[in-house]
Amino acid sequence: MTTTRRDTYTPETLLSVAVRVFNERGYDGTSMEHLSKAAGISKSSIYHHVAGKEELLRRAVSRALDGLFVVLDEPAATRGRAIERVEYVTRRTVEVLMDELPYVTLLLRVRGNTKTERWALERRREFDQRIADLMKAAAADGDLRSDVDIRLATRLLFGMVNSLVEWYRPQPADGADRQQLADTVVRLAFDGLRTGH
Amino acid sequence: MTTTRRDTYTPETLLSVAVRVFNERGYDGTSMEHLSKAAGISKSSIYHHVAGKEELLRRAVSRALDGLFVVLDEPAATRGRAIERVEYVTRRTVEVLMDELPYVTLLLRVRGNTKTERWALERRREFDQRIADLMKAAAADGDLRSDVDIRLATRLLFGMVNSLVEWYRPQPADGADRQQLADTVVRLAFDGLRTGH
Repeated sequence: MTTTRRDTYTPETLLSVAVRVFNERGYDGTSMEHLSKAAGISKSSIYHHVAGKEELLRRAVSRALDGLFVVLDEPAATRGRAIERVEYVTRRTVEVLMDELPYVTLLLRVRGNTKTERWALERRREFDQRIADLMKAAAADGDLRSDVDIRLATRLLFGMVNSLVEWYRPQPADGADRQQLADTVVRLAFDGLRTGH
Repeated sequence: MTTTRRDTYTPETLLSVAVRVFNERGYDGTSMEHLSKAAGISKSSIYHHVAGKEELLRRAVSRALDGLFVVLDEPAATRGRAIERVEYVTRRTVEVLMDELPYVTLLLRVRGNTKTERWALERRREFDQRIADLMKAAAADGDLRSDVDIRLATRLLFGMVNSLVEWYRPQPADGADRQQLADTVVRLAFDGLRTGH
């Protein structure tokens, strides 16, 4: 007799359980035992799907990174005036954060203790660099104010965007919410909250 | 013979060691054993100074909270037009974050498992509420744009400010840096990054 459930997992559904546990306990603090308990299947059943917890981490952060990098290659991110492209990428990044919330949360908490974590940090830096380049192009066009340091402003902008993983919780019917949140980020960052400019 | 150092700690210096360890390992993951090792003194020496790790947590988050609440009572935060007071409080909050970086970092990571943590969360909500009230007053004056939700904008603004604990690292001579960072936050949030309004 065993109390574990029949293994009806696919790699995808197992991944969503793993990401939840990683976010709750931290990646370092999660053992295969924890994953086995949370999934309700034996460790050997998990090993049937993946080589180990590092593979689950790699799949999870890949999903977040793929979502983010896709944005950079969308038409509105590659054509037109840099400032418009920056605003588009900002808005779309907010949307990806909302759509892939647990995966991006995990990505943003990665620390660099394993090869996979270091790879994820490297990819994040690459993404940040692409954004920083866009911001520089917008500044060169004269579309960003010259009395702020662009690198610092980029950090603050994405500090604001990334803060979503700390407090955003999707609502059952969040269509309007989602749009409003993306709009508010872009308005706040690029147009400012004050009236009467 | 013992290898532990002579106890030359004051409650204050012991606190700075404890906060570093709490931030590295998480409060839940820190034992008195960890604190004893990091401080290089025996557990009984620590108990000479404090009743236990929860007292260290309370002192640490109190230091962060006191720094933040003081700002709200400063003259520029209590007199004049609400929009000016909001900008002042934003700027000063950034400064407190930089000055008390490890303490505010700990405060922002508190989760609510103990009485002290729940008390800290309650105080944080109180602070957030005071800011939200100021923002509402500025909106009522017509000084904040009417096409953004003020509550959401407040969250995003403080998401940006609080993101500092993730990436800001003080430089040896950081006077200019410090000023520039506070200025950039206020300009970005209230005036926006775009030129030509």
